[in-house]
Amino acid sequence: MLKTLTNKLSQEMIKIVGKENVLYSEEEIYTYSTDSTNIINPNEKADIVVFALNKEQVSKIIKYANANLIPIIARAAGTNLCGACLPKSGGIIIDFSRMNRIIEINKDNLYCIVEPGVVVEDLQKAVEEQDLFYPPDPSNLKVSMIGGSIGLSSGGPHTFKYGSTKDFIINLEVVLSDGTIIHTGSSCSKDVTGYNMTQLFVGSEGTLGIITQATIRLIPKPEAKRVMLAYFDTLEDTSRTVNDIISNLITPSVIDLMDKNTLKTIESFYPSGLLTDKTAALLIEIDGFKSALDEQYEKIINICTQNNSSYIQTAKTKEEEEKIWIARRSSFGATAKLAPNVVTEDVVVPRNNIVKLVKGIWEICNKYELKTCIMGHIGDGNIHPNIALDLRNTQEKENFKKAKTELFELALSLNGRLSGEHGIGCEKSYFINKALDPNTLEYMKKIKKIFDPKNILNPKKIFQENL
Amino acid sequence: MLKTLTNKLSQEMIKIVGKENVLYSEEEIYTYSTDSTNIINPNEKADIVVFALNKEQVSKIIKYANANLIPIIARAAGTNLCGACLPKSGGIIIDFSRMNRIIEINKDNLYCIVEPGVVVEDLQKAVEEQDLFYPPDPSNLKVSMIGGSIGLSSGGPHTFKYGSTKDFIINLEVVLSDGTIIHTGSSCSKDVTGYNMTQLFVGSEGTLGIITQATIRLIPKPEAKRVMLAYFDTLEDTSRTVNDIISNLITPSVIDLMDKNTLKTIESFYPSGLLTDKTAALLIEIDGFKSALDEQYEKIINICTQNNSSYIQTAKTKEEEEKIWIARRSSFGATAKLAPNVVTEDVVVPRNNIVKLVKGIWEICNKYELKTCIMGHIGDGNIHPNIALDLRNTQEKENFKKAKTELFELALSLNGRLSGEHGIGCEKSYFINKALDPNTLEYMKKIKKIFDPKNILNPKKIFQENL
Repeated sequence: MLKTLTNKLSQEMIKIVGKENVLYSEEEIYTYSTDSTNIINPNEKADIVVFALNKEQVSKIIKYANANLIPIIARAAGTNLCGACLPKSGGIIIDFSRMNRIIEINKDNLYCIVEPGVVVEDLQKAVEEQDLFYPPDPSNLKVSMIGGSIGLSSGGPHTFKYGSTKDFIINLEVVLSDGTIIHTGSSCSKDVTGYNMTQLFVGSEGTLGIITQATIRLIPKPEAKRVMLAYFDTLEDTSRTVNDIISNLITPSVIDLMDKNTLKTIESFYPSGLLTDKTAALLIEIDGFKSALDEQYEKIINICTQNNSSYIQTAKTKEEEEKIWIARRSSFGATAKLAPNVVTEDVVVPRNNIVKLVKGIWEICNKYELKTCIMGHIGDGNIHPNIALDLRNTQEKENFKKAKTELFELALSLNGRLSGEHGIGCEKSYFINKALDPNTLEYMKKIKKIFDPKNILNPKKIFQENL
Repeated sequence: MLKTLTNKLSQEMIKIVGKENVLYSEEEIYTYSTDSTNIINPNEKADIVVFALNKEQVSKIIKYANANLIPIIARAAGTNLCGACLPKSGGIIIDFSRMNRIIEINKDNLYCIVEPGVVVEDLQKAVEEQDLFYPPDPSNLKVSMIGGSIGLSSGGPHTFKYGSTKDFIINLEVVLSDGTIIHTGSSCSKDVTGYNMTQLFVGSEGTLGIITQATIRLIPKPEAKRVMLAYFDTLEDTSRTVNDIISNLITPSVIDLMDKNTLKTIESFYPSGLLTDKTAALLIEIDGFKSALDEQYEKIINICTQNNSSYIQTAKTKEEEEKIWIARRSSFGATAKLAPNVVTEDVVVPRNNIVKLVKGIWEICNKYELKTCIMGHIGDGNIHPNIALDLRNTQEKENFKKAKTELFELALSLNGRLSGEHGIGCEKSYFINKALDPNTLEYMKKIKKIFDPKNILNPKKIFQENL
């Protein structure tokens, strides 16, 4: 963008949000050229970063951008893993971290109303104080914000039992690309008044409109939980255990997989008492009424044993539970210690194909000599390979690119999908033509065009080309 | 439509589906001019009714209709209550009752694949045989078909705990208005590969595309359930009971309301041992693990008692449970005995406004001298007034029209919505401009136009005008 427009742009933005809510120095702008995806292209910089404080400001910013054909990128905490808020074509980044109010927690009607900058864990804690529960728990929940969760329909371990972000959003206040403000739903969780506009915006990665407020369905908090870790010598036993638990009418609140490398890597850097000579471990959490947990717990132990689990670690206290969870949550951090960079991938397959998927990933990563720790939400068939590498090393980078494409091809060949919970962003957009039915894709593009005819909203995300 | 085209139309349709799958006699066509909504306009008749047997036939029918600007109305069992499949502008009715295969029940991956003509109860029974559960249970489930359930995002008593049809649909095969066939999702319940096209079609009442196959998420079957009926002398006590149950971390699988008139009317025509001198009754069902039911049951009894419940009837046996359910399910049938016609309305409000809603409905119906039995899913704030009247009586019909409009105004004034689970069809479309944010409505119409530029798919539904 030309210097003159940038100067004019700064002045216009200052008029709308005030000087204290605008960033435009080289250094400040630079920090917004990356996100948790671990990619930075120094040539792809925003022209300006603006902290919005309310929907009226967002509307004014977008009207200005629309009139001047300036891209708009919404950003909350920037913790996404698919390059969803990178400024591919410059433009205005609207940072929502200062719009962070929990406006209402309505216990009787089981919903809350929040601004996009609320940190997910803060939201969880606030509702739990009132004995309510917001289940989606992306692993970055201590820093990630609800606006990003909605934009990407984030999941997390609890998704298997409770569903992902999409299953909890019932109304959105959205500023469209011409500055118009709409409301997509209502505070009624059951509502069939016209098309489901809410779900069109959830997971749309800021490409259809900018979310300025959300109404979120809540549920009563489960009374108690129990956590265990079961180790297996084969993936087949691990997978069969998951099926058998479900066949026994148990829906664990979490059923996560850690492979051998994950166990070893966590134990190397954050010793937690994990066994490192096993092929895989299942972290299983059950929750609900105390009175129903014993029975399920016994059944699960039996099922694990019948499926040749070589060791089952059960948490007897809150502290032991927490220890298992801290270990599990360290998988990314531990992998990050193996090399300068770590990239977390995200594919999903019908659960019965999980053994083929994990073995295939091992093969691909061996072939390309990539250090990979595999974990994921096996109940949902949703697997995350954490790949440690040095992106400055051209060969490694090239190998990673090839491995990534083979990973996607593998997932699709197993009736899977490109992403279960991280989104497409600009990191997977190069593959979306292969991943989707071409007619379906064409209609997605048509929808994009009615909401954003000038293609100013987060261009080059989801779809590779400029639309 | 001109006789000549009709003849040509018959020939073309016979070519596509065979003579045995086409209806065009006056008498046969006439039966398709009505549905469970209880409205018939003898001037609004289909030109032809076609039973489709597969997606290729549907595609051919639609291509012909597109080329000749003939409306297409998809119809499953015709049990909807909003005139969703009435032939407002003539055209081809595609009857899906012969596309009724359950193609796959995949226990390990927790989904099934079905055609639109599968009866909802048949689907439930088939999956329950495999210890799986499909919770949505519209009260007409013995005859209603899954295609209609999807088109209208049907609910039912179980929605409070488990969600409505929309929460279980993960992939749809859809024939678009130009005959193109698309797939909206996948067999992975967690999937963020592009926009959520699935939820755009769920609840779209056949106005965006014609559903020919659905992939439905399933869950493990609850092990046990328990049913009770608690009577109250005031609506305030009834409503407080619901809030208190939820505050005590209990999510009943059903929490339905029956008002005094409903209790009396059921008891008059189907004696079931219901008390008829109470203001309201709550039908409460809890389900889950046997071991957790006793405790919840005791808590609920205590909560009801603390809230002045004057009598609590608990089902001790399967037969007693069934007896309570049969009574509850007779509410429509019993009301139908009060007058030649019965119309079931459907509005939804945030639950805390339920007392105001029910009292308001009583007032409106008194004012217009309409016999009304109110029941509904109080947990969701979703209320159904069953109004008994003689639609041949001009005055009664006129009164009903006025009452209906006042009912909608009342629901909106209580932050509610036009429909919780029955849809808009042609019965509520006259009010949709008042019910929705005008900008949101405008974008719904834009979406309609990209999917159906010639407006051949179920015209005059949801939106009043021809688009």
